[in-house]
Amino acid sequence: MTNKPANAPAEELDAHECWAFLRGVSVGRLAVWDTDHPDIFPINYAVDHGSLVFRTGLGTKLDAALGETPVAFEADGVDPVSAVAWSVVAKGSARRLDSTEDVLASFSIMLFPWQSGHKDTFIRIEPTSITGRKFVVADPAQWWTAQATATRTSPE
Amino acid sequence: MTNKPANAPAEELDAHECWAFLRGVSVGRLAVWDTDHPDIFPINYAVDHGSLVFRTGLGTKLDAALGETPVAFEADGVDPVSAVAWSVVAKGSARRLDSTEDVLASFSIMLFPWQSGHKDTFIRIEPTSITGRKFVVADPAQWWTAQATATRTSPE
Repeated sequence: MTNKPANAPAEELDAHECWAFLRGVSVGRLAVWDTDHPDIFPINYAVDHGSLVFRTGLGTKLDAALGETPVAFEADGVDPVSAVAWSVVAKGSARRLDSTEDVLASFSIMLFPWQSGHKDTFIRIEPTSITGRKFVVADPAQWWTAQATATRTSPE
Repeated sequence: MTNKPANAPAEELDAHECWAFLRGVSVGRLAVWDTDHPDIFPINYAVDHGSLVFRTGLGTKLDAALGETPVAFEADGVDPVSAVAWSVVAKGSARRLDSTEDVLASFSIMLFPWQSGHKDTFIRIEPTSITGRKFVVADPAQWWTAQATATRTSPE
């Protein structure tokens, strides 16, 4: 068995499907531009009415994302039952949440920052574009760790 | 139960540990700069002697990454037994693999491109920096999908 898809090419998702997938997980990755190179941060996020909210600290490279430069966010997953693998990418600008916004009370409970340190800043991304795709994989249990399995099998 | 870490702050990984984690999974994300914004692609990758190899097609935005602009790669995961969540970020430049390189035969078996279409180009990233961190989560089974659980529980 290999980590190739079981069936047809990837299927594009509409915005509604993208948001449905994003609501199903809570770990994604944020891409930002840092001076002279791209950087990626894993983030623990929540969906809030068509936006993404996450928690971070001041003084990190992420501060660069709070200016004029846009950011890109990605999340993906695989359903062990349906064998559907998916990926969603949202693009837009990030802004700091006002401490008076009422989402903070609930989000502070559920959002844990991956990087240690003092992280009491909440960031919201309101995407200007959201795209995604899905496809069926041959072996969902092996999809994320397919490398070792694939190298032990013969070519098809 | 929430998706907060069980214990202490995140622990930094050395390069050896980073590569060990990268060898354990086969799905990561590549961040590139596309004209005026960052973009992210999920990729099915393999580790090859201190480099990352993945498959893509010509004519995608990824072509932009093959110039002078550096790229950033990220992979993460959580061990359901040890409850250790980890993330590794590798930065460097991407280059197209020569078709005579002998890694192609094995990699073509194990690497599936997430985007549909004709994808017979292999890319290698030889990182100039690799960093990572790990930490213990309270509930590894819920870590990736902790949102629904967290919102049903009370604050601690």
